[in-house]
Amino acid sequence: MVDKKYVYLFREGSADMKNLLGGKGANLAEMTNIGLNVPQGFTITTEACLEYYDCGEQLPGGLWEQILPAIQDVERASGKRFGDPENPLLVSVRSGARVSMPGMMDTILNLGLNEGTASGVSKATGNERFAFDCYRRFIQMFGDVVLGIASHKFENILEEVKEKQGVTFDSELSPESLKGLVVKFKALVKQETGVPFPDDPYEQLKEAITAVFKSWNNHRAIVYRKANGIPDSYGTAVNVQSMVFGNMGNDSGTGVAFTRNPSTGEKHLYGEYLMNAQGEDVVAGIRTPLSIDSLQNDNPEIYRQFSEIAKNLENHYKNMQDIEFTIEKGRLYILQTRNGKCTISAAIRIAVELCQEGLITKEEAVERIDPHQLEKLLHRRIDDAAKLDVVATGLPASPGAASGKIIFSADEAEKLGQAGEKVILVGTETTPDDIHGMLAAQGILTSRGGMTSHAAVVARHMGKPAVCGCDALKINLADKIFMIGDDAYPEGTEITIDGATGRVIRGTVPMKDPDLSGEFQKILEWSDGIRKLQVMANADNPPDAAKAREFGAQGIGLCRTEHMFMDPARIPIVQKMILAQTLPEREAALAELLPMQEGDFYGILKAMHGLPVTIRLLDPPLHEFLPNGEELALEIQELKLTANLQDEKVQKEIKDKEVLLKKVRGLQEMNPMLGHRGCRLGISYPEIYAMQSRAIFKAAARLVKEGVDVRPHVKIPLVIHHKELEILRKQTEEIAQEIIKTEGVKINYQIGTMIEVPRAALTADEIAPFAEFFSFGTNDLTQTVLGFSRDDAEGKFLPDYLNQNILANNPFAVLDRDGVGRIMKICVDLGRKANPGIKIGICGEHGGDPSSIEFCQEINLDYVSCSPFRVPIARLGAAQAALKNRA
Amino acid sequence: MVDKKYVYLFREGSADMKNLLGGKGANLAEMTNIGLNVPQGFTITTEACLEYYDCGEQLPGGLWEQILPAIQDVERASGKRFGDPENPLLVSVRSGARVSMPGMMDTILNLGLNEGTASGVSKATGNERFAFDCYRRFIQMFGDVVLGIASHKFENILEEVKEKQGVTFDSELSPESLKGLVVKFKALVKQETGVPFPDDPYEQLKEAITAVFKSWNNHRAIVYRKANGIPDSYGTAVNVQSMVFGNMGNDSGTGVAFTRNPSTGEKHLYGEYLMNAQGEDVVAGIRTPLSIDSLQNDNPEIYRQFSEIAKNLENHYKNMQDIEFTIEKGRLYILQTRNGKCTISAAIRIAVELCQEGLITKEEAVERIDPHQLEKLLHRRIDDAAKLDVVATGLPASPGAASGKIIFSADEAEKLGQAGEKVILVGTETTPDDIHGMLAAQGILTSRGGMTSHAAVVARHMGKPAVCGCDALKINLADKIFMIGDDAYPEGTEITIDGATGRVIRGTVPMKDPDLSGEFQKILEWSDGIRKLQVMANADNPPDAAKAREFGAQGIGLCRTEHMFMDPARIPIVQKMILAQTLPEREAALAELLPMQEGDFYGILKAMHGLPVTIRLLDPPLHEFLPNGEELALEIQELKLTANLQDEKVQKEIKDKEVLLKKVRGLQEMNPMLGHRGCRLGISYPEIYAMQSRAIFKAAARLVKEGVDVRPHVKIPLVIHHKELEILRKQTEEIAQEIIKTEGVKINYQIGTMIEVPRAALTADEIAPFAEFFSFGTNDLTQTVLGFSRDDAEGKFLPDYLNQNILANNPFAVLDRDGVGRIMKICVDLGRKANPGIKIGICGEHGGDPSSIEFCQEINLDYVSCSPFRVPIARLGAAQAALKNRA
Repeated sequence: MVDKKYVYLFREGSADMKNLLGGKGANLAEMTNIGLNVPQGFTITTEACLEYYDCGEQLPGGLWEQILPAIQDVERASGKRFGDPENPLLVSVRSGARVSMPGMMDTILNLGLNEGTASGVSKATGNERFAFDCYRRFIQMFGDVVLGIASHKFENILEEVKEKQGVTFDSELSPESLKGLVVKFKALVKQETGVPFPDDPYEQLKEAITAVFKSWNNHRAIVYRKANGIPDSYGTAVNVQSMVFGNMGNDSGTGVAFTRNPSTGEKHLYGEYLMNAQGEDVVAGIRTPLSIDSLQNDNPEIYRQFSEIAKNLENHYKNMQDIEFTIEKGRLYILQTRNGKCTISAAIRIAVELCQEGLITKEEAVERIDPHQLEKLLHRRIDDAAKLDVVATGLPASPGAASGKIIFSADEAEKLGQAGEKVILVGTETTPDDIHGMLAAQGILTSRGGMTSHAAVVARHMGKPAVCGCDALKINLADKIFMIGDDAYPEGTEITIDGATGRVIRGTVPMKDPDLSGEFQKILEWSDGIRKLQVMANADNPPDAAKAREFGAQGIGLCRTEHMFMDPARIPIVQKMILAQTLPEREAALAELLPMQEGDFYGILKAMHGLPVTIRLLDPPLHEFLPNGEELALEIQELKLTANLQDEKVQKEIKDKEVLLKKVRGLQEMNPMLGHRGCRLGISYPEIYAMQSRAIFKAAARLVKEGVDVRPHVKIPLVIHHKELEILRKQTEEIAQEIIKTEGVKINYQIGTMIEVPRAALTADEIAPFAEFFSFGTNDLTQTVLGFSRDDAEGKFLPDYLNQNILANNPFAVLDRDGVGRIMKICVDLGRKANPGIKIGICGEHGGDPSSIEFCQEINLDYVSCSPFRVPIARLGAAQAALKNRA
Repeated sequence: MVDKKYVYLFREGSADMKNLLGGKGANLAEMTNIGLNVPQGFTITTEACLEYYDCGEQLPGGLWEQILPAIQDVERASGKRFGDPENPLLVSVRSGARVSMPGMMDTILNLGLNEGTASGVSKATGNERFAFDCYRRFIQMFGDVVLGIASHKFENILEEVKEKQGVTFDSELSPESLKGLVVKFKALVKQETGVPFPDDPYEQLKEAITAVFKSWNNHRAIVYRKANGIPDSYGTAVNVQSMVFGNMGNDSGTGVAFTRNPSTGEKHLYGEYLMNAQGEDVVAGIRTPLSIDSLQNDNPEIYRQFSEIAKNLENHYKNMQDIEFTIEKGRLYILQTRNGKCTISAAIRIAVELCQEGLITKEEAVERIDPHQLEKLLHRRIDDAAKLDVVATGLPASPGAASGKIIFSADEAEKLGQAGEKVILVGTETTPDDIHGMLAAQGILTSRGGMTSHAAVVARHMGKPAVCGCDALKINLADKIFMIGDDAYPEGTEITIDGATGRVIRGTVPMKDPDLSGEFQKILEWSDGIRKLQVMANADNPPDAAKAREFGAQGIGLCRTEHMFMDPARIPIVQKMILAQTLPEREAALAELLPMQEGDFYGILKAMHGLPVTIRLLDPPLHEFLPNGEELALEIQELKLTANLQDEKVQKEIKDKEVLLKKVRGLQEMNPMLGHRGCRLGISYPEIYAMQSRAIFKAAARLVKEGVDVRPHVKIPLVIHHKELEILRKQTEEIAQEIIKTEGVKINYQIGTMIEVPRAALTADEIAPFAEFFSFGTNDLTQTVLGFSRDDAEGKFLPDYLNQNILANNPFAVLDRDGVGRIMKICVDLGRKANPGIKIGICGEHGGDPSSIEFCQEINLDYVSCSPFRVPIARLGAAQAALKNRA
């Protein structure tokens, strides 16, 4: 049997050998092969690691025999020798798995040091302190990682010595003290292990390699793999690389640089360096590094070499690079290069410019941008330079920053807001009754509720900053004040909230406006050229619709009509409609609502001229529009126990409340989510849907006469059976045709349905013939497919599910592909089979989530619809999905 | 083109020509062909009807030309002639569709009558009164059906004449008056239509045939077809048959007989006859008919002929027959024969005896019994002979009858019940807190709630009579009394309820015990030999388990553990467990519950020795075990407003209640159905499921030591993801193994899961490897697949869905095959693919519904599980499903 090849010199590997050499090893090989001067070394394969475990934690046979010639190769390349006191070769030994597991496994630096080689380093660097500092650190690291001696035992000795010397910092220790420390450390090792610290570099190396293999199965690595779904069967590679030193005199140095500015994206070398220094010196802050620009004067040749390398690396990796380098005795070594991390603005500029430079395609540019980061650009934010008095921190519920006066009531917020005042609406939580106050406020701050509380969801939808669940706030509504600790914040106090971080700040602070640069628009334009999914927006009113249009929405995918019913001016009429005892009574109330709804639709259809507006007929259960039953019961009891029961007015008040309570009780539901809502209302009370249809087509007819191109799409919610749609479609069409006829206009309309209950998806073939479009309501579909009430899950058991890793994500934020996704796929297949022309999309929060958008592309939907502020994200996400799907 | 054959003489048709000749026509042909003396005639095909409509409501060309020779054939056979005053042929003209639509379309009798032929009939029967009574009836019938003259106009004339004559009954009118009536009727026709009443029999016939065709599209027929899913395209046939008369002297007569006794099933001719009479005379009650036995003496030859025919008909149709006959001048005519309707007891006896006589197979016998009817045999019922004082009627919520004293509190009911008293538990409705009272009572009576209210569901499950939603009852709990109208029923009053009809009866009444005859057992035995589905029962306690075993259950498919928690002695401990602030506190409460649960499982496992007992771990949300939040809030407010707040005891009471309320609020849910329940409890509080598992396996170990063969199956509820099952299975197995080891016994156990949420069904392939069995919880699955909260749907919008024919059945009673069924099929396919040995069944109310059982067979489930009292129904239903599925 031929021996398996366990050891690869860097020059024998390549970037595509990640599985065998690990990520780091493959990268070192790649850099070597493109001609960079990388400190030489070799990689022991992941297979060797797996065999190590297969052999019962023994180095596999033949491995060591392959390592020895590899070391000789490194010796030749570096001109140094392992264990040579004159010119010692020192190496690092590092783990490196197929996928990065930062900090999870072990590393040993400066391996090869002993008394003799330490003196050699001292001579070579002219820095005895450095040499013995390296040595004592090496013993501690080796003692900890390889020999299993608790680090604190070394630290204790170090502290004793420092105390004895009367110094505070390690760096103040004299070379003599460090030498003494080495002796003490070695004594500790002897004491703990019973054998002396190994001086032989080969023995050090063998033990270090074994230790790295072992570290694949240390506790934190196992936990990390489990959490990130990395199979145990990958194993880790081991990289052995010669050390180079930047502190070997004034012709040595060390530094780090980006090929472009990571803050702005500007194309200009950006970084710092220090001559005659190790990387640690930079980190320790003892000396101040210089800008990389100075290197041009200090050492033009090295600068030229480095600039050249930087350019080559960009060209090779076709991306901005973050490069670590060391100069050892006038020779430039590249220690590491990787794609540079940068701000989202910089990332966009760099991607666009790289494309314009011809290095990458538009598609690649689009792929480079993390859509999640885009959101940062779309909101006002606190100036980075501002000094802040942060007084509390809550959940970052809706991005953006806002300042204003504390106001506790929605009505008051609306009043002040309309008067031009800036207010922050503060409360324990918000309810649908507060919508008008939320609209008028600059931002929302709540002391209760999570990322998916009413306040958070509505604020995100409105694109308004919100900090939620800030439990440091103790709100006293009666006194219109909140406390944070002992500090009082009465109504009217100025505060600032930062919805991106959850910070609550006293007073107002300087802000920066969103910066939608030319490159940003370019990326979105390119995205539009690539994507296949249409991007629509969810908007319930003309301002939201206008915002959506500005952000590039191709129409309204979901216009909810219930918010229109919640308007404080209308709610009494809505209640009259609900409490009606007879059909004529109900129709009278509906007749009052008709012109109001017509006005709503007129505004939104006009704002979206030329684009479709998908209007969902009334969806929530009617009791949402009525007062709370328990509060009523308490009020009645209070009146009965405390008011003057002889007073006729009191008697009447009690009676009225009792009548109302009875109706409220009659409408109360055990599980409103699965109750009398959606098109079930249309089936039970056809007159409600008739009024809404009439309002839509009357508004459309008016606009057509005014020369506006309107495209109303009527959406029937919560369908579970084709007969529901058949009945309600018929009613809507009859009304549409009647208005078209009497008004003498042409209206370009469609009728479709939400798919938000499993039965609808499972019988999509029966439903599709009655629909021009399907719109997945993935929020409700997630609730029914998982049997999760969103309101109950998120505060209660969902955290357990995420903590115990049963679910990888909150299924209301990221679409559950294995469950909800499967039934969506079934629906699409059945629906298209029965009605090949049907348009299918999703509306709801998933429509703005890149991972969910990717799935929508995968199952070939026609569109996604999301809140206006997520439209740019969806445009980019859809383009990336199209690219992924194409591959 | 050859003319299509539109007209078939009876002897030209056969039983298998139903589509062309309609049910009645095919049957008349069949009887003719097997040699019965049927009054001759012919059938006009359904195709002729359809062409009638295709030609714009014109008789199709060539039809009349085929009718004329058919009449001549009938004339030859009867020896009478159409329109002949000496010996007139009269005919009936009847509709007859492919499927029976009783009373929906039109019939005309005695067609062919005019002045001349009426005199002929008068002469032939020697009964002038009869002849002219026929004639005036014919004019009225023809006027109504053919000429569209409202019937009441004829009735008005009749009333006038009767008044003038001073008589009360039609039969008191003299022949002269009847002749006068004929004249008056004809005048009315002339006045209404402008033309005289047709005297020509051929014209009468043509118009009558046209009228029958037209009646296919009358309003009530259309509605009936829609309701019963009969296509409009079937059309109706028209049967023209010669009339025979049983009143042509003492050698004539008429009667009806069953081939076996329809009450008892006894094999003996059973029926009545009258000589010299028409069928109407029997109906009118003027003369008392004689038992068919008398015919043996009165006319032995006719009796012999009839007995022979009856036997032949049974042999031919292989079923008990219901036969109408007429003797005209000594000649026996058979007018109709059909399968006889009978009681369920008779049906069972007849089926068993027909099988034993070799006429039908066991399979046919089993197929003959309507499983829905079986239930009647399983309960006590009120003696048919008893005189009843019915005082109110509610919904027939759970079958069976019971008498006892009115009791309003569950505690009181339990106390008296244990003392041997018979009580009826009465309330507005029941809650899980009342279980002990329901168990102790003979029956349940509620004034509110429907067929699926708590009282109804639990009573059916217990096999206990219940009448629900009896809104005539006005209950005053404070005074322990209810009123029906002005009658008072104080606690202690004896009443009787009949759960099969919903009747509430004053006092006690004689009862009959269930009669599970030998034939009943035989049918079930035969069913067991045929069926493939196992039949298990749902039972939560040893008495229910014993009952299930008695009815033939093959194990317990669902043992709920929450009812055990509801026991009044335990609820304080359960609440302590829920309200625990720390894990040790909760574990202490669980330790108190452990021996109780162990006792529960000991009892039920022992009762089911040798058979599996499937125990579902805790399922309902924890707040179900706590007091109601609103009630608490009201109590607190009342204390605050009325009690002495200086009193320390009051202060403490308020504080305690406030603490409890806070916890209740914390556990309250928006949608409990989709909330923190099922295995989500096991994930959040593993200690609860651990206690239950420990109780199961400790009980099992004790029994094994006592030599009992126990087979506990542990069922994990509400799984949506394989990881839940993986985690909870592991915990259960560890406990099982630990107990098996420490107790030194072998326990034959299994672990499986409920499938009651769509996600579980959709990912069944991932879940199946962790389960020995799947058990569909079709109630919850229906709730999630349809998005229907059962509690909210049944009282509110479900009636709209049934009335508007959107859903054909209540999906909680009859499995929704198109929706829930589709996802079950997906689950079975995925689950069996991943784990071919997995056992799959359903538990819940659908398990006892024959239509749902049929579907379970169709998708090849392994078992159904239902309440003990439905086990016999399920055994029969499963056999019928196997037979249907085989075909």
